[in-house]
Amino acid sequence: MRYARIPDETVRRLPIYLRSLSYWTDLGRERISSKDLAESVGVNPWQIRKDFSYFGQFGAPGVGYDIASLTKHIKKILRLDNDKEVALVGVGNLGNAVLAYSGFDRYGLKIAMAYDMNPKKIGKTVEGVTVEDFADLSKLPLRKVKLAILAVPTGIAQEVADRLIAAGIKGILNFSACHLVVPKSVKVTHIDIAMDLASLPYYLPTR
Amino acid sequence: MRYARIPDETVRRLPIYLRSLSYWTDLGRERISSKDLAESVGVNPWQIRKDFSYFGQFGAPGVGYDIASLTKHIKKILRLDNDKEVALVGVGNLGNAVLAYSGFDRYGLKIAMAYDMNPKKIGKTVEGVTVEDFADLSKLPLRKVKLAILAVPTGIAQEVADRLIAAGIKGILNFSACHLVVPKSVKVTHIDIAMDLASLPYYLPTR
Repeated sequence: MRYARIPDETVRRLPIYLRSLSYWTDLGRERISSKDLAESVGVNPWQIRKDFSYFGQFGAPGVGYDIASLTKHIKKILRLDNDKEVALVGVGNLGNAVLAYSGFDRYGLKIAMAYDMNPKKIGKTVEGVTVEDFADLSKLPLRKVKLAILAVPTGIAQEVADRLIAAGIKGILNFSACHLVVPKSVKVTHIDIAMDLASLPYYLPTR
Repeated sequence: MRYARIPDETVRRLPIYLRSLSYWTDLGRERISSKDLAESVGVNPWQIRKDFSYFGQFGAPGVGYDIASLTKHIKKILRLDNDKEVALVGVGNLGNAVLAYSGFDRYGLKIAMAYDMNPKKIGKTVEGVTVEDFADLSKLPLRKVKLAILAVPTGIAQEVADRLIAAGIKGILNFSACHLVVPKSVKVTHIDIAMDLASLPYYLPTR
């Protein structure tokens, strides 16, 4: 089941809460107040309470949230409660970095396949994943993969996205600076390195 | 001058608005309604009006925002109205991808120096930037660089961050999965690839 009508902003914050909850779990904590959780993720406590209000009643005044049950609940809402395979397209520097990235496990996500167009890369195994020919992308539906990471040059990002969508992909994590045009049934999330860097100067000391 | 008391969440959204405004500018648009802007960035129109309310009165009902003046104003608030140099630490796959990334210009940001510990990398020029010895990081204050991108393995991220802070860095874009402990005067922004990917399954069709 899907919890309908949770705003994008909240959906985007839920994994941040998950990461923080995992951090506190590792430290041996069992409960956390919305104030502490807020501080550790950098949002307002009222925002956390509002975000959680979309999916029922959590925590109690003065007692805080039970970390294990909150984690389980958020995972269920984000539909991370069972493992999911992800296809990577583009095995350049960024693609290699993505394959080497160790944080996917925590969310039950796994880069299970990688595609490239470069004959020199096809057939090679990177971090346990064998690079396949991009021309074979049409076989993706057989593998029931719905998520893809797009790590290709900006110039071909739209074309590759179109091919991914034709192959049944419903969610794309887009690293390119390209504004992808996709059907309403497909969700695109951007990672824009420059944009994230651009929020830092605001905090610089004024002299 | 710094506009005080803008919440982190808003600061984080301002570059997203900038990117969208730049997109509309490229298409030749001069004005945009908060509704259109909201749709193009995926937040609620009331959120946009609230975000902009922190820095005065913008736009008018039925007329919308003047794209050029809004862009200029947001840049000023984010202190992106003059160019800034950024130091990259770690020239592995991810560091190489960062150096090749073309989107920094838009925000007046420039990767002006790169550091690594690997003697094989030191002295090489990547995308016009010569990789310097990490041991020379102590010379950073002379160059008045305040921003750094951390693209090193998780195991050494805290140690490297400490060195960066000692060298005068005040803002860090952290790619490692490591929770950095920093003084209050230093701002850290995370890019967590897994976390961004983790928000996508929510949108998958339920069957």
